[in-house]
Amino acid sequence: MSADRRGFLKWGLLGGLSAATRPAGAQETAAAPAVPALDDDAAPAWMRKPGAPILSPPYGQPSPFEAGVVRKARRRPPFATAASSGTPLQSLHGIITPSGLHFERHHAGVPAIDPEKHRLMIHGLVERPLIFTLGELMRFPSVSRLHFIECSGNTPWTGGQESWTAQDTHGLLSCSEWTGVPLATLLAETGLRPQARWLLAEGADAAAMSRSVPLDKALDDALVAYAQNGERLRPEQGYPLRLVLPGFEGNMNIKWLRRIKVGDQPFQTREETSRYTDLLPDGRARQFTFQMAAKSVITRPSGGQSLPAPGFYEISGLAWSGHGKVRRVEVSTDGGVRWREAALQTPVLAKCLTRFRAPWTWDGGPAVLQSRVTDETGYVQPSREALIAEVGLNSGYHCNAIHSWRVAAGGAVTNAV
Amino acid sequence: MSADRRGFLKWGLLGGLSAATRPAGAQETAAAPAVPALDDDAAPAWMRKPGAPILSPPYGQPSPFEAGVVRKARRRPPFATAASSGTPLQSLHGIITPSGLHFERHHAGVPAIDPEKHRLMIHGLVERPLIFTLGELMRFPSVSRLHFIECSGNTPWTGGQESWTAQDTHGLLSCSEWTGVPLATLLAETGLRPQARWLLAEGADAAAMSRSVPLDKALDDALVAYAQNGERLRPEQGYPLRLVLPGFEGNMNIKWLRRIKVGDQPFQTREETSRYTDLLPDGRARQFTFQMAAKSVITRPSGGQSLPAPGFYEISGLAWSGHGKVRRVEVSTDGGVRWREAALQTPVLAKCLTRFRAPWTWDGGPAVLQSRVTDETGYVQPSREALIAEVGLNSGYHCNAIHSWRVAAGGAVTNAV
Repeated sequence: MSADRRGFLKWGLLGGLSAATRPAGAQETAAAPAVPALDDDAAPAWMRKPGAPILSPPYGQPSPFEAGVVRKARRRPPFATAASSGTPLQSLHGIITPSGLHFERHHAGVPAIDPEKHRLMIHGLVERPLIFTLGELMRFPSVSRLHFIECSGNTPWTGGQESWTAQDTHGLLSCSEWTGVPLATLLAETGLRPQARWLLAEGADAAAMSRSVPLDKALDDALVAYAQNGERLRPEQGYPLRLVLPGFEGNMNIKWLRRIKVGDQPFQTREETSRYTDLLPDGRARQFTFQMAAKSVITRPSGGQSLPAPGFYEISGLAWSGHGKVRRVEVSTDGGVRWREAALQTPVLAKCLTRFRAPWTWDGGPAVLQSRVTDETGYVQPSREALIAEVGLNSGYHCNAIHSWRVAAGGAVTNAV
Repeated sequence: MSADRRGFLKWGLLGGLSAATRPAGAQETAAAPAVPALDDDAAPAWMRKPGAPILSPPYGQPSPFEAGVVRKARRRPPFATAASSGTPLQSLHGIITPSGLHFERHHAGVPAIDPEKHRLMIHGLVERPLIFTLGELMRFPSVSRLHFIECSGNTPWTGGQESWTAQDTHGLLSCSEWTGVPLATLLAETGLRPQARWLLAEGADAAAMSRSVPLDKALDDALVAYAQNGERLRPEQGYPLRLVLPGFEGNMNIKWLRRIKVGDQPFQTREETSRYTDLLPDGRARQFTFQMAAKSVITRPSGGQSLPAPGFYEISGLAWSGHGKVRRVEVSTDGGVRWREAALQTPVLAKCLTRFRAPWTWDGGPAVLQSRVTDETGYVQPSREALIAEVGLNSGYHCNAIHSWRVAAGGAVTNAV
């Protein structure tokens, strides 16, 4: 708990509440409380008769009142099978992304795979090529870990439009508990030939989405995952098998994983030559930018929301790093002039979203809200200007700049472009 | 990683694989791998044409191949609005319960509450009675924590039937990331009168489900939660507000929370006098048994599953304690004669499920699988016999005995009753 939060509580405990200063603006009741008693005719309708029975339905769904909390495309895509849809970060809490709201990015749509017919083959520079069924993979020793996945094209370098929400600016970011077999375990089964240095991972979608993975990563923390947030993977996340490469850019976490070929050099697939390379100002390209750099965004208050009245608000957001744990998050309410440290929700886990929070008393005037993360390597999230000075504006990927939300005097929050 | 697991990996790395000893029973391929190439007519159907577009649907659903993984009632209830349905623990991985599979226990069905019209009132022995809207509550400083909730009637003392699965024997147990306002923060706003010792928490369902809560718990780690696994609470879990009392029996985690009354003694509600008391052998009743004692269950292999062939299996299960963290889990494959330590998945969190795993090579003969947890207080999960000797068989609640699954020579796994 930060000093600011302690201050808030102390202030609450000491009283002195009034309509103007009470953080939540709660109504003070008279001696006779205004909530109807059970025998009162004014008791809410839903207390006067039994509600819905169990198992309606057997697989539960959100309240109809939350129908607006869904995935959404940033813009109408020319091809809906080669497109993306974002997680509604502005409506979410904590660090888990419900699997139904995990962002999507498909290169040839979502295949409908029969798990009984699906196979994973590991071949190439191995001692013993092997083919695995799902049942066989699920008998291996397994691990479960919480990791974020972020699309390398998540945040546009253009800054987007003033009307954009956090779902538009940062929604290609989600976080799940993944369960599967360490890829290292499977490679121990196949054995590796001395020349082995790289892996090709290939998906069973119609794009045969393929990326090259350094062997070091495969032997470190890579997972062949079959479960997400407790249940089996969702179709949009690779059912029945996904390669999870913690901290690496989203598209390398190959969905519908069908094949791993071991080689001695990168495989130079389409998706790492014509796509997913970072074009530099001088026309050369960084071919591989595997790790997602440290980044953060305030999700509340954020674009499209509004502050009903001056007073107390909790600033809340997400921070993450593909290089490890989040060490520190700072927030600014004046566009980066002054910064103060936010509280980090524990446990802080490596290559996982970290929820941060900071108290803020809004004076009713214009404000610009920003967050800035430092990860455990000491790397500090850069300003937009510093990042552009370093890598230019030719790349469509890996924009991890500090993001700004503008608060207008009336309380409307917009994307500061 | 346990010594046993290291042994498994070493053994894998050293090779010596054969159809009889390979852990996952993977097929060894010939020099020409049997997985069809992309230009092969035998390539799977789902690679030959684009799959489903994004946002189909905007709120994602499980694969149709997982249609059997749903909540289920142990038996057909006389009244489906005063009944329960269990989480399919035998099909789940890791520690998160997908919200659509969180167990249900309702006393008068699930109310359909309009969050705009819902209020929480705090009154009684307070300085300032207050009524909060959802919007007001969501402006307070919030916290997010992972906690299990278990129904006190989860596991029948009778042991159930031979055909029962883990969903039947232990399914009234789920685990979520809960986000909300510490109840202590709200009580700091209302202030407490010197006589305050107990709280009444009341739900807005037609049962007005009500329980007494000790003030110490309210000021410790109680949450007024509005979110679960990232999104707003599901209707079956109390939408739009639930009292979360980490480690306390499920029914005290009042759903659809509408009212908290502060008093100087327990309120003696129906649900803590005629129900949810533990009847002892001598006819007296333990009125309050708030905390869920340490307990564990193997979920894989478990009742209803079968082992296809002798060889390597990973024994996997869940352990938890209402008193804090899990310190150790041991497993036995011979009905409790010999025990060995299981590996615990990190992070191990207080009052949260902990996934444990242990390697096992099945010799093809009969076996009895058991797990035994020790929590951080040093308490050891008791045998069925020891527990019954202590508290008798009059109570329908709080059975936390070691559970046994029987493996038959053919590989069928059943509930050992």
